[in-house]
Amino acid sequence: MNSRLIAVLPGDGIGPEIMAEAVKVLRALDLDLHLEHAPVGGAAYEAHGHPLPELTLNLAKKADAVLFGAVGDWKYDKLERALRPEQAILGLRKNLGLFANFRPALCYEQLTHASSLKPELVSGLDILILRELTGDIYFGTPRGRRTAVDGHFPGAEEAFDTMRYSRPEIERIAHLAFQAARKRRGKVTSVDKANVLETSQLWKDVVTEVHQQYADVQLDHMYVDNAAMQLVKAPKAFDVIVTGNLFGDILSDEAAMLTGSIGMLPSASLDRHGKGLYEPSHGSAPDIAGKGVANPLATILSAAMMLRYTLNQPQQADRIEAAVQSVLAQGLRTGDIWSEGTARVGTREMGDAVVAAI
Amino acid sequence: MNSRLIAVLPGDGIGPEIMAEAVKVLRALDLDLHLEHAPVGGAAYEAHGHPLPELTLNLAKKADAVLFGAVGDWKYDKLERALRPEQAILGLRKNLGLFANFRPALCYEQLTHASSLKPELVSGLDILILRELTGDIYFGTPRGRRTAVDGHFPGAEEAFDTMRYSRPEIERIAHLAFQAARKRRGKVTSVDKANVLETSQLWKDVVTEVHQQYADVQLDHMYVDNAAMQLVKAPKAFDVIVTGNLFGDILSDEAAMLTGSIGMLPSASLDRHGKGLYEPSHGSAPDIAGKGVANPLATILSAAMMLRYTLNQPQQADRIEAAVQSVLAQGLRTGDIWSEGTARVGTREMGDAVVAAI
Ligand SMILES: CC(C)[C@H](C(=O)O)[C@@H](O)C(=O)O
Ligand SMILES: CC(C)[C@H](C(=O)O)[C@@H](O)C(=O)O
Repeated sequence: MNSRLIAVLPGDGIGPEIMAEAVKVLRALDLDLHLEHAPVGGAAYEAHGHPLPELTLNLAKKADAVLFGAVGDWKYDKLERALRPEQAILGLRKNLGLFANFRPALCYEQLTHASSLKPELVSGLDILILRELTGDIYFGTPRGRRTAVDGHFPGAEEAFDTMRYSRPEIERIAHLAFQAARKRRGKVTSVDKANVLETSQLWKDVVTEVHQQYADVQLDHMYVDNAAMQLVKAPKAFDVIVTGNLFGDILSDEAAMLTGSIGMLPSASLDRHGKGLYEPSHGSAPDIAGKGVANPLATILSAAMMLRYTLNQPQQADRIEAAVQSVLAQGLRTGDIWSEGTARVGTREMGDAVVAAI
Repeated sequence: MNSRLIAVLPGDGIGPEIMAEAVKVLRALDLDLHLEHAPVGGAAYEAHGHPLPELTLNLAKKADAVLFGAVGDWKYDKLERALRPEQAILGLRKNLGLFANFRPALCYEQLTHASSLKPELVSGLDILILRELTGDIYFGTPRGRRTAVDGHFPGAEEAFDTMRYSRPEIERIAHLAFQAARKRRGKVTSVDKANVLETSQLWKDVVTEVHQQYADVQLDHMYVDNAAMQLVKAPKAFDVIVTGNLFGDILSDEAAMLTGSIGMLPSASLDRHGKGLYEPSHGSAPDIAGKGVANPLATILSAAMMLRYTLNQPQQADRIEAAVQSVLAQGLRTGDIWSEGTARVGTREMGDAVVAAI
């Protein structure tokens, strides 16, 4: 492998702590990686007046892959929206064209008890949520405030947003869903709200058309309200869920929480060439920032995903994932996944243990 | 009480069976109710070519309250959207101005084991979800299909919808939320996606303003993705959740399923005068229709809600609710809530038992 450039963006809250461990793990592998750090989110706003400064965006564009920690803190709540930390992540997705968000919801056998759900419902759970990430109501225009000219209260102030999807946007994510299902249990559930929304009806039509090319994969359609219920009732009935940006935001978080170990879950956001941004599924947890207690495993596993999906180093990814399994087997646990009879460790000890296990 | 006119709309699937039991219970009370039946949903489409025929809409408008069963069946999936059963419910909400949807998520002590969640997380659960029902992306215009002029694929076919809320629409539902919280545990969680949507930012601003008039009530704001997670993690932390039409659709179903006994949960959809449509939270369940096994209790409890909210007969509502508690205490269960050691009964026996307990 030629030297590859990785943009390392730690961000806010627990971001820097968990990122330090992921970096440590990457350095423990015999790979020619050039890791370059840059500020993002609130940290970048403090240093450069913007959550996604030019230098950070340029590094991310130039890099082969981006490893992202987490952004956000209560203290930025009063800033105007365009300057808030989350805008960095929206800006990266848009500017890098990261349209495909892979969010596995896995329940680790040793952590089954940590789930809110009864063990038999989540033991062995393995769902992949594929969320479209650059379209939908997140980026649709027009949007804004105005005086209503019709509706229930003409003349009143109103705010509005536009949900939209075009056929090729739906096609490309549908292809990825069917391809992913082929490597898994062969089933795709497409989630929409086609009984109400025009956008959803097009979504459903296009996914159905693309499915013609994947006759070996089973396709079901489900309304989003029903999907939110079925995830609670029988999560193991799902294999791959493919859905739009807004519904995917909600369902992927719900599914992650169902596993009980969101501190373990990585994610990948890919562009059409397979370049990607990798980040833990959890947030910046400002309440525990700086205390050295955060779980670094989701970030470490995100680095493994990066090796697998973008850097084409599946053996190295396997090594990291096996090392994580091994520290769990050793009984090491950060506070979020700790239970009676296991050993509570801090962020750094957990990272060290993974390095030792590699 | 003067004679009151109730529009009884049984609908499709299990609708007629469960409605028959609710009607039996209402007749067992000493009230001067005039119950008039009309077809709705697929049944109305079969009989009159439209899911919400003129005669049904007129009856609903004329009536003091509407008791609604359920609509929908796979067999109407191929119909054009405007003729599908669900359009009846959207048409009733819109034409009757039913903007306030009250969806309690209650966990009955005797049914705690039926939940997917661990008993300690749901035992005693009592959340009220207040969903705005006549605005948002459900009814916003413009909507449709067109050729994209911008976005990722200009020139491609795209579909679009408009999310919108006006200030007075948000104000009126916010007032109801704070008033409801005053009669409960004094806490409102307003759910939005203000980090992304203009509509949500206005929602958050207006709810915060209205809150000035209810200093005794605690107000929190939560993003919808986080709300979907917190409902799984610690549902009992919520009291009243107030949210828009789309997020409310998803979260109210998620919360209902968390209780494990969606077959027990009624709902009310009110206009600004307190006139309402009452319906079970569950659907038409075409797979078990006509078998006499459906749980009629959600519909019976919807009738109780109708007596309480619209007909101003709280004692009669209490009688029904006490009767339902009593049949549960007797150990009677329909299949959906049955467990070892209880007696499995059918739809009609369950209705008879409630009548006997009154
Ligand atoms: C921070 C926010 C804009 C973002 C989103 O809604 O996409 C987050 O919730 C996520 O899922 O990555
Ligand atoms: C049938 C459908 C249009 C409806 C909705 O989305 O509102 C249903 O899901 C509900 O919640 O009553």
